[in-house]
Amino acid sequence: MELHIKNRQKLLESLRQHLSHSSRPLHGFVLLQGGEEHMRHDTDHVDLFRQESYFAYLFGVKEPGFYAAIDVSNGETILFAPRLPDDYAVWLGEIKQPSYYKEHYKVDKACFTNEIASVLEQRYQGSGAPLLFLLYGLNTDSNNFAKPAEFQGIEKFDQDLTALHPILTECRVIKTDMEIALIQYANDISSEAHIEVMRKVKVGMKEYQLESMFLHHTYMYGGCRHCSYTCICPTGENSAILHYGSAATPNDKTLEDGDIALLDMGAEYHFYGSDITCSFPVNGKFTSDQALIYNAVLDAHNAVISEMKPGVCWVDMHILAEKVILESLKKGQILVGDVNDMLSARLGGIFMSHGLGHFLGIDTHDPGGYLKDLKRINEPGLKYLRTVRDLQEGMVMTVEPGCYFNDSLLLPAMNSPKTSKFFNQKVINRFHGFGGVRIESALVVTATGCYNMTKCPREIHEVEAVMAGAPWPPTKGVENGLQSKLDL
Amino acid sequence: MELHIKNRQKLLESLRQHLSHSSRPLHGFVLLQGGEEHMRHDTDHVDLFRQESYFAYLFGVKEPGFYAAIDVSNGETILFAPRLPDDYAVWLGEIKQPSYYKEHYKVDKACFTNEIASVLEQRYQGSGAPLLFLLYGLNTDSNNFAKPAEFQGIEKFDQDLTALHPILTECRVIKTDMEIALIQYANDISSEAHIEVMRKVKVGMKEYQLESMFLHHTYMYGGCRHCSYTCICPTGENSAILHYGSAATPNDKTLEDGDIALLDMGAEYHFYGSDITCSFPVNGKFTSDQALIYNAVLDAHNAVISEMKPGVCWVDMHILAEKVILESLKKGQILVGDVNDMLSARLGGIFMSHGLGHFLGIDTHDPGGYLKDLKRINEPGLKYLRTVRDLQEGMVMTVEPGCYFNDSLLLPAMNSPKTSKFFNQKVINRFHGFGGVRIESALVVTATGCYNMTKCPREIHEVEAVMAGAPWPPTKGVENGLQSKLDL
Repeated sequence: MELHIKNRQKLLESLRQHLSHSSRPLHGFVLLQGGEEHMRHDTDHVDLFRQESYFAYLFGVKEPGFYAAIDVSNGETILFAPRLPDDYAVWLGEIKQPSYYKEHYKVDKACFTNEIASVLEQRYQGSGAPLLFLLYGLNTDSNNFAKPAEFQGIEKFDQDLTALHPILTECRVIKTDMEIALIQYANDISSEAHIEVMRKVKVGMKEYQLESMFLHHTYMYGGCRHCSYTCICPTGENSAILHYGSAATPNDKTLEDGDIALLDMGAEYHFYGSDITCSFPVNGKFTSDQALIYNAVLDAHNAVISEMKPGVCWVDMHILAEKVILESLKKGQILVGDVNDMLSARLGGIFMSHGLGHFLGIDTHDPGGYLKDLKRINEPGLKYLRTVRDLQEGMVMTVEPGCYFNDSLLLPAMNSPKTSKFFNQKVINRFHGFGGVRIESALVVTATGCYNMTKCPREIHEVEAVMAGAPWPPTKGVENGLQSKLDL
Repeated sequence: MELHIKNRQKLLESLRQHLSHSSRPLHGFVLLQGGEEHMRHDTDHVDLFRQESYFAYLFGVKEPGFYAAIDVSNGETILFAPRLPDDYAVWLGEIKQPSYYKEHYKVDKACFTNEIASVLEQRYQGSGAPLLFLLYGLNTDSNNFAKPAEFQGIEKFDQDLTALHPILTECRVIKTDMEIALIQYANDISSEAHIEVMRKVKVGMKEYQLESMFLHHTYMYGGCRHCSYTCICPTGENSAILHYGSAATPNDKTLEDGDIALLDMGAEYHFYGSDITCSFPVNGKFTSDQALIYNAVLDAHNAVISEMKPGVCWVDMHILAEKVILESLKKGQILVGDVNDMLSARLGGIFMSHGLGHFLGIDTHDPGGYLKDLKRINEPGLKYLRTVRDLQEGMVMTVEPGCYFNDSLLLPAMNSPKTSKFFNQKVINRFHGFGGVRIESALVVTATGCYNMTKCPREIHEVEAVMAGAPWPPTKGVENGLQSKLDL
């Protein structure tokens, strides 16, 4: 809960600064409404509840039906718990009193949700109607809007719907050390689970069995009940589908000899997530074509990581990744011509048809990518960038270059007068049905560079060794041949 | 898909019969709207989609965004697929044409959802505005209403909101052989998984590790991506909480020596579910008190099963279960007095604070429990019955008696002038913190009795043997000592 106290302090400082700058009085209440449980259609099937992300960020409350307020004048936090019906104790567990929640969630006061209006009115020190800072604003990944809190008696308050969302979102963009530690934990257990899957994968399995192994490892050994997102487990041609694994494509293909697997899976722990992609041949040995595409992507991944530091523009990193991939495809004789011409013709967006990466935190696509009126770049590939910002210390970003052979993009590009000249038709035909490769790590931007939180084997020889049963991480001694000497 | 064709035929017959009885013309269209994907709050986090249950029953469609119609005049089925944006092919998979869906879902015609009005108008043979039978009605478990289909152009149609829901719900109550086979499959893999958990459970584990083992077994070896409901994995005192395991009580207690575990977990396969509860001591050996309560519940479970057959009233079965449990508690000196007096004082509802069981199918609590104006009985325990109907061949019911020591019910009953006399205070104090026991199987009602689809060890000696590593099901030879002779 220390983490959430820090998050609230950060918000309070930013909000007060904003109010001071606008010569506004430092009072009123930040008021958020937590999430509610969701029943499936008309049935009584209750989906497992996961807290609304802004509410989780500030208050860390796991149960549905709560509200919470922060008193801007003195920084005190008041939690409002739902009044539960008597038979809750029979069906769902002990009915806890506000005093329990005050203690458990380390807040200054706890009451019931039907007391919101009276409690806030009573505490208000300013003149006129008390002011509420409510959460309302656009999520630029979903185009959905955060829904401001609603409660009985809200009409007695003044409402500010514009100040809170950008300030709170910006707080979420820059992670504290405690947040980074949690994301690191989710990364560690997810890295481990990816390696477990690599070791156990066999031709003839179903894609969903890889998903099942991952889920089991992160829950059984990591206590991760939720995933950051539905597991994406395509193999073979399916690996060209970026978000494979949904209900329409439920990870149900059989793994065949020669298939590449692209496993994009990440567990969540105490609201904070991970997002990791590993690509490897299901039979454990890269073909030369698989190695070509894999190394193109790995080189892009590594090139970006070596450039990342505060001040670097994310769009430049995206283009750097494209460039490295296009250069490799040219070396591999899939493409011909000048790579800068290819970049200008936006050929990068044909092979890497998504953004290079995104903020990672309580949401997989953590918000804040387009704050302060930043606009999307309306060009192939670039239009999918989830942020165009310059890097700052404390941002946690995924770096996830990919290279895919998706007919729905390739065929038009191969037939377009603008781009057809770049394709070596004979060679590219060999890659029909290849699928794709993605390599994704989570990076935290440091003062001078960045740190890779994801600890999976990445070099081809490492991947092949781990799949063949070698230990991971390799002990240093074994790696450089010293171990046997030290053992003597 | 054969199964869904049969389901449609059943509906069509019932609906036509209903129309004939009311001297109404046999035309118009049954029109259902399938479920939509759900994004979490304002984010782009998409919860894994699971089809709306009535739509799944009739059409078996796994993808979101569909509609479907059945032409009452000739029984033809028309599926309406959503038009997908071009970049769907990049992110989510191949964009399939209606012809694909026509073939895959074995329907007579497939079009796009923007063609609903024009296609139905064109096909309509009757006079006046074409009639739509839309799904609208109460789910008596959630008190939510089914939401009738909505689409552009619906104003050109007449609407019947009353006929379809009770008829279609009644179709779902009586299962076909193919439905029973699917429920049996979900039961088989879930029974297996329960046994796997029993074998591996150890003092010191976390409750969620039992959940994780179950989920992994049913997905890895059974292909069950969904569960029928969130796993309920209480141990020790928590086992008195009927629906433990939600976000507020996330299966996070450590298993302690002497704890009873109550594991209520069931997997779903192709929409059809299972619902199984096993109770056992986490250390593998029943104490005498655990054995007392366990056998009380097991005797109730077995007594009900031996009585179940067509014509038997479910309320009588509930009271039979209560009676057997109360008799056992009396034998165990927890209660004193006349068992019939206890029943009249509704003491059964204090120990078994839920209904005896429910319909099981595409929903865990399958609908139809209170069709035809049947009313709930407003008394402790009985008010939770999810049906009060007489049994019919083809119904699939759970039988899930339980006996719990929940202070929120016990203390008032022990202090009530009406019921205090039944309690042997000294003995019952021993059970403070005991938790509870539930034993739950799925039964299909046959022409002359019922068949238990759930194949878990139930007798104490069986449970202890399986937990100690004995095979399950036991081979007959081993059980009676013949195997070694046969091997010679």
